[in-house]
Amino acid sequence: MDPLHDLTLGDVVREHSRSRPLRTALVCAAYRGTYPELNARTDRLANALLAAGLGEGDTVLWLGQNCHRLVETLVACAKVGGVLVPANWRQSADELVTVLDDVAPAVVIWQSEEIGAPVQEARGRWGGTARWLLHDADTHAEAHTDTADEEAYEAFLSSGAPGDPGRAVDPAAPVIALFTAAFGGRPNGALLSHDAVLSQALTVALVQNITEDTVYLNSGPMFHMATLMTTFAALGMGGTNVMTRRVDAEELCRLVEAERCNYGFFMGPTSAEILELNKDGRYDLSSLRTFGGNAAWNAMIQVDDSPWGTHPAGYGQTEATGMLTFNALGIGATGTSGRPSPWVQVRIVDPEGNDVPAGETGEIVARGRVLTSGYHMRPELNAERTRGGWWHTSDLGRREADGSISFVAPLTRIVKSAAENIYPAEVESCLTRHRGVKEAAIIGVPDPKWTQRVVAVVVRAEGPDGEAVTEEELIAHCRSLIASYKKPSRVEFVDALPRQGWAVDYDALDQRFGGGGYPGIGSSI
Amino acid sequence: MDPLHDLTLGDVVREHSRSRPLRTALVCAAYRGTYPELNARTDRLANALLAAGLGEGDTVLWLGQNCHRLVETLVACAKVGGVLVPANWRQSADELVTVLDDVAPAVVIWQSEEIGAPVQEARGRWGGTARWLLHDADTHAEAHTDTADEEAYEAFLSSGAPGDPGRAVDPAAPVIALFTAAFGGRPNGALLSHDAVLSQALTVALVQNITEDTVYLNSGPMFHMATLMTTFAALGMGGTNVMTRRVDAEELCRLVEAERCNYGFFMGPTSAEILELNKDGRYDLSSLRTFGGNAAWNAMIQVDDSPWGTHPAGYGQTEATGMLTFNALGIGATGTSGRPSPWVQVRIVDPEGNDVPAGETGEIVARGRVLTSGYHMRPELNAERTRGGWWHTSDLGRREADGSISFVAPLTRIVKSAAENIYPAEVESCLTRHRGVKEAAIIGVPDPKWTQRVVAVVVRAEGPDGEAVTEEELIAHCRSLIASYKKPSRVEFVDALPRQGWAVDYDALDQRFGGGGYPGIGSSI
Repeated sequence: MDPLHDLTLGDVVREHSRSRPLRTALVCAAYRGTYPELNARTDRLANALLAAGLGEGDTVLWLGQNCHRLVETLVACAKVGGVLVPANWRQSADELVTVLDDVAPAVVIWQSEEIGAPVQEARGRWGGTARWLLHDADTHAEAHTDTADEEAYEAFLSSGAPGDPGRAVDPAAPVIALFTAAFGGRPNGALLSHDAVLSQALTVALVQNITEDTVYLNSGPMFHMATLMTTFAALGMGGTNVMTRRVDAEELCRLVEAERCNYGFFMGPTSAEILELNKDGRYDLSSLRTFGGNAAWNAMIQVDDSPWGTHPAGYGQTEATGMLTFNALGIGATGTSGRPSPWVQVRIVDPEGNDVPAGETGEIVARGRVLTSGYHMRPELNAERTRGGWWHTSDLGRREADGSISFVAPLTRIVKSAAENIYPAEVESCLTRHRGVKEAAIIGVPDPKWTQRVVAVVVRAEGPDGEAVTEEELIAHCRSLIASYKKPSRVEFVDALPRQGWAVDYDALDQRFGGGGYPGIGSSI
Repeated sequence: MDPLHDLTLGDVVREHSRSRPLRTALVCAAYRGTYPELNARTDRLANALLAAGLGEGDTVLWLGQNCHRLVETLVACAKVGGVLVPANWRQSADELVTVLDDVAPAVVIWQSEEIGAPVQEARGRWGGTARWLLHDADTHAEAHTDTADEEAYEAFLSSGAPGDPGRAVDPAAPVIALFTAAFGGRPNGALLSHDAVLSQALTVALVQNITEDTVYLNSGPMFHMATLMTTFAALGMGGTNVMTRRVDAEELCRLVEAERCNYGFFMGPTSAEILELNKDGRYDLSSLRTFGGNAAWNAMIQVDDSPWGTHPAGYGQTEATGMLTFNALGIGATGTSGRPSPWVQVRIVDPEGNDVPAGETGEIVARGRVLTSGYHMRPELNAERTRGGWWHTSDLGRREADGSISFVAPLTRIVKSAAENIYPAEVESCLTRHRGVKEAAIIGVPDPKWTQRVVAVVVRAEGPDGEAVTEEELIAHCRSLIASYKKPSRVEFVDALPRQGWAVDYDALDQRFGGGGYPGIGSSI
């Protein structure tokens, strides 16, 4: 470590509390806090975590929706060398037990509202021990009398001593982990360092024009890098992050108007809902700088005509703290994903790690500060993904003659439902746990609203279990084991899966059952 | 070192050669080269430097004016762990000998045009050995037949093997050193790492809107950070750097028109000259985005109305790779220097290192990647400047109530002539080397064109030498020993220097001899 040159996420908040003492850092329902308050509250939380025994590299699991306390927990971890893991709150109790096993958290911060039941079920079934803190005890306790005895986040924070913990923290050490991908049917927590988060924050600020005047509506889930990249940029530049518990079009409108939000994260369907519900202009959304749409939409907001606003795509993955390439850095390029962000290295290689010629497809590999420090507790996978000193993305890409990059397809195909990646292997492994299923293959079929829907192609098991199983039963089986959005919307029964050599021939399945619309262009995050 | 996450200046050029193969990297007189050519030429130069025995941390001294070869040498050093030192070419032979002694270069790259005489004189008098390469042998040889036997830069470069040298280079290691300040009458070479250069490049790109479409006219001296900060940003973003040997208003106009330069570095007097010589519009300068001026100027160029364009100042120093604070990051702030750049830490402290309250003056201290790795060969000074893990700037500042920062004054007062800092101690030590001088003090008096002129206040030595010395003689004495712009324009003789305790009372001298106009606001670089 090098105190003169090192910079951590904690340092950034320390500086803002000196240089931007009047700026609002976080807004969340009734809560509103300045940067000095963020610094002071995270000092207390950091000291409380130390007192609770949190050690360097220990994890704090966030089982809740979007909240200012998620950012506080991140900054407190940053100040003492802890690692925040914000989990997908839409997961089933089964999935949450797997997450708990995998993360082995020292502290769990959980939420009773909306998701209390699966969280409590998972907690009961999990074999490990942790300090459990209920973050919404104050706002939600009356609705859940059974949480009256739970230790509350706010009480825990207040128990911490004031003043900077003064710990030396290595900026190359991880500060956050996000779950991603499911190669082999199992999600992995990608560890990201202070260096990665801060380098990407500055790059995103540059590309998306994020400044201290940015008021960013965190309107996507904060366990997902697509939302979080800009959260980091707004935090890094000393802007304001406005939280909303989950995506609700009317609440988003209310927040944009009330907080004069000038930036946000909106998926297409959400924008359509906003357009519909605000067609009478009941909400003033004129502060919002965002992508252009039809005339009614453009009249409602400020059309972002910057390179990013007109070309808001690129290629990236959670393991790269978000984007690796931006169309905004290669406008006019022939590649579909633009050019690398400043200060990352990208190559297109064959299985032996040699560069493939321009125009030919290979695996995208990358280096630079934004790259993950590896998956939490996956030494073998990490060795494989970092072979030769380059991060292997498991994505196929192509270098065009003008040097720009086209994302081609995941080496492992992904089904896309709204912003969510659904990994066929994960749903398939869930289906084959059913006694009536011998084999299963997942394809995505185009959906006008959510990009794709999941379709399962199933070979029945031999015997009475296989004969009896129904479409309804398999869908219910999946819903009970994995997040609801991953369940098949349709099941097709076949005698055998088509194969090319050992591998299932997904193209043949697509042809037969209407598959298509895979995320083949732009970002795979 | 960490190959997956480390990024060097060499890596940035490697990536541009893949991602921006058609972009022009460098333009210099008849030379024009793309990024792949920059990558290929610096591979050869790097290999030639290795073959010549350049080791890690060894220095390459640039004794020339602005040239694409200066950037090539920087990138070649970056690829093999060398350190480029671009020296002020306006120095006298005496000063150049001091630089040679101090840098102890393994390789010197020198120029015959305009500055060949003092360089050759210094070379003759210097006691050390180095490999001397004449960079302008091709373009200037006919004018200097005495250089016919000199080893030429181009021949040396061509002697290097093609292909990447493939050396692992630590991004925390220095890659460039710039001379600055003269505390105790002696300039010091501030070492700057890859990390520092790249972090500042990204920050400058963000603040000044530098992109791959930037065509930057390097119209200030490249041994000075004020010019070089933006050179780094344009190089980092994959833009084009256009060189000009030295500042000549008509040549700048010609280059802006010919290369469609859209960015440049212009001091006020140069802008005034351009305005005058182009009042008939003979040059088309409409590509240039720059600060606004009077109506005639604004009609000639594109007025930059960005935060930077309207508030193009801040506080910084060479030891921070340029700016530490930007007015563009604190528009509307009460402090005169704005707010810190992203990812640096700034505090205002008393002599014991404790924070002083807002509104009170203290020394500006800073941390972050942009900070120097220390002065070349100055272990004691480095220990003093980095005490407590913070870089002590030797500048006084004040934190305002809104968190913004005001630069107050150098702890050591500086006289400013155009972009150049003149350190009184250096000129004073030159004067006292004259046998007729007992004591001397330097003040700056306001100058309508160049900010300040140097005035010397001198106490004659006792005896005939002191009695005989004249103003003309002392000015000529300075011109023979230090750069011409540092010489006094006037000498006042006094019986004794006024003092406060042990220290010369410069305020009293200012009052008596018309001193004032010191750089008290904005940048001290």
